Amino acid sequence: MPHVRVTRRVHWNSAHRLHRADWSDQRNEQVFGACSNPHWHGHNYEMDVTVSGPVDPETGYVLDLKILKEILEQRVVSDLDHRNLNVQVPWLEGVNPTTENLVVAIWERLVDQLPSGLRLERIVLWETPRNYVEYTGD
Amino acid sequence: MPHVRVTRRVHWNSAHRLHRADWSDQRNEQVFGACSNPHWHGHNYEMDVTVSGPVDPETGYVLDLKILKEILEQRVVSDLDHRNLNVQVPWLEGVNPTTENLVVAIWERLVDQLPSGLRLERIVLWETPRNYVEYTGD
Amino acid sequence: MPHVRVTRRVHWNSAHRLHRADWSDQRNEQVFGACSNPHWHGHNYEMDVTVSGPVDPETGYVLDLKILKEILEQRVVSDLDHRNLNVQVPWLEGVNPTTENLVVAIWERLVDQLPSGLRLERIVLWETPRNYVEYTGD
Amino acid sequence: MPHVRVTRRVHWNSAHRLHRADWSDQRNEQVFGACSNPHWHGHNYEMDVTVSGPVDPETGYVLDLKILKEILEQRVVSDLDHRNLNVQVPWLEGVNPTTENLVVAIWERLVDQLPSGLRLERIVLWETPRNYVEYTGD
Amino acid sequence: MPHVRVTRRVHWNSAHRLHRADWSDQRNEQVFGACSNPHWHGHNYEMDVTVSGPVDPETGYVLDLKILKEILEQRVVSDLDHRNLNVQVPWLEGVNPTTENLVVAIWERLVDQLPSGLRLERIVLWETPRNYVEYTGD
Amino acid sequence: MPHVRVTRRVHWNSAHRLHRADWSDQRNEQVFGACSNPHWHGHNYEMDVTVSGPVDPETGYVLDLKILKEILEQRVVSDLDHRNLNVQVPWLEGVNPTTENLVVAIWERLVDQLPSGLRLERIVLWETPRNYVEYTGD
Repeated sequence: MPHVRVTRRVHWNSAHRLHRADWSDQRNEQVFGACSNPHWHGHNYEMDVTVSGPVDPETGYVLDLKILKEILEQRVVSDLDHRNLNVQVPWLEGVNPTTENLVVAIWERLVDQLPSGLRLERIVLWETPRNYVEYTGD
Repeated sequence: MPHVRVTRRVHWNSAHRLHRADWSDQRNEQVFGACSNPHWHGHNYEMDVTVSGPVDPETGYVLDLKILKEILEQRVVSDLDHRNLNVQVPWLEGVNPTTENLVVAIWERLVDQLPSGLRLERIVLWETPRNYVEYTGD
Repeated sequence: MPHVRVTRRVHWNSAHRLHRADWSDQRNEQVFGACSNPHWHGHNYEMDVTVSGPVDPETGYVLDLKILKEILEQRVVSDLDHRNLNVQVPWLEGVNPTTENLVVAIWERLVDQLPSGLRLERIVLWETPRNYVEYTGD
Repeated sequence: MPHVRVTRRVHWNSAHRLHRADWSDQRNEQVFGACSNPHWHGHNYEMDVTVSGPVDPETGYVLDLKILKEILEQRVVSDLDHRNLNVQVPWLEGVNPTTENLVVAIWERLVDQLPSGLRLERIVLWETPRNYVEYTGD
Repeated sequence: MPHVRVTRRVHWNSAHRLHRADWSDQRNEQVFGACSNPHWHGHNYEMDVTVSGPVDPETGYVLDLKILKEILEQRVVSDLDHRNLNVQVPWLEGVNPTTENLVVAIWERLVDQLPSGLRLERIVLWETPRNYVEYTGD
Repeated sequence: MPHVRVTRRVHWNSAHRLHRADWSDQRNEQVFGACSNPHWHGHNYEMDVTVSGPVDPETGYVLDLKILKEILEQRVVSDLDHRNLNVQVPWLEGVNPTTENLVVAIWERLVDQLPSGLRLERIVLWETPRNYVEYTGD
């Protein structure tokens, strides 16, 4: 049975800043520059979530993308869209919302939510059209 | 002498919320929904600024795009990038930063800054890859 | 009061063929080539619908894009998505679904549906990423 | 000698439906929803085909992309473009044309067609700009 | 009869430099900077050519896009693709190949080549994904 | 500590031709076709450079993208932008500038320039929007 990777792209908008509460304002500014602006900035995030598994000989699907779309909506997008990543998302509490930390936190939200037999393969997260991160659970 | 329209695309990231200070929180929420989130959200803005004029027979340029790029950087991008549109931009003070109000305010920042003989023709402003506004000064 | 153009992008997938019932198969094939394949072909349509009007000084909106999105869903997308344009859409009955005829028919579906004071300005319809049509009601 | 991956992007348009002949209409509808519409729907498919191998020290090529383009045209695109995937493609006979089944069938069409010393590395197939599958022959 | 605008996108690759033979090297460098590099640089040009006219009630076409594609290939793309715009294109002889001059020269190559009853409406020419020019024959 | 891949996209414009000085003009033409045009052609190159490493628990960064951007500018973009790849780039001397040879040469320019603990993971280089190469150092 062939194994195929299936990807769904989703998007949302959030405000954030890069900031550590245990650092002085000066040090935050020094390390994170304009990204630490105390009045926030924000992004249109785009995310590709890839799931792999055997093609079901009955349906010809690895999984019905409607199921993946629903999981992404419930576990990630509804919590992040039109929100402030630093102060409004329980599962990001205490996390400095760099793209790296964000992709790892999203991985944890999704990795045990897939139908059995499927593997969360890769998450690609664009902060802007010019930079993105990838995480594969390693 | 042919008249040509020349466009430069620029981008920046900002936080904002849709909000009127003279309305109750309830009314803001009713009219603007998730966009009025008091903790802000944000966008990667992309903007196409179009200038028209005769092609200079000496240079073959309507204008040197480096000049337009510099004007856009000084008059718009440096003020908006990694900022909060509601509270950190002097020329947006008192403006509810809908995309419509933003494109009109940007027009005012640019319209009298072009080299003589040239016309600010059109500004297209994307708030997300799925919605944008255009303004032509009317 | 400034007048601004506001655009919402939507998408759907359909099957179609170019075909006139009053022509022989041979003539359909001669004029429309592979596009007249009796077993159909199909496209991912992308459409930008642009509405113009004065910016409402109260809200800063030309119109709330949620309203436009809802009109597009009810009047166009729900009828065309995952459908056959030649045989399953009442308002395309008897229409040879070229992109030109399609954009004109969609215009008629939308032109009198907008809130008062607003103008349907332009529809851009992509049949593929390499060709598109525009209609402005003329 | 360095090993490099070389990719060519191609595209075509097809009609299809998700459907098993050995299932009742009701069950097809239940499992595949709008994708099982008996009157078909369709897509603009985009496909990236990646070939890997050593860089030929004489030419500086892994392979001349004109060769890959020709193979893709002859073995895949000419059979699928402006066709119905369920009823007009001999090598898809009996295949339920989900994107997963389609990418595996295309792999089989290509895997033994490359010049010797080269490896078919990966096929990425977009059904829409928002979902795609990848296959690497596993 | 509705009037619709129909657009075809094409592309090619060329080398060029911005340069006037009647100016000293120093003045060319002063005005055109890196764009006047005597060893050339180059671009992937993308071009949208828009034709307008009444929708033919017989075919539902403004024009068959295969005709437009053929005109663009013969009159423009075959002359420019993989060529040097300064020294290898007879109809650009003596033209400093700025994007402005190029779009006007392409307009002249196309304006009298369309089937009768149709109008060359607009040419948009991208020199890079971040800057483009438009010409409408004015 | 999770390992994440971080990517920065950059771009530049160059002229080049495919050519071996030790081959006759005829043989160059036979093997490389229009790409061997003695008057050159050119491209808008786009490049994604991916770096992997552990997420620094202090900053939440794999690395500050400003550092990567600076390395790419100094080691690659400033040497290639608005230049001729065959005759103006010391580190491409004697290299036939196919995309394959170019991506390997860029890899060598970058692989020992990263902060310690980080790995150059992958370079993707687009010559046109329709073809690209990837190199991972193998």
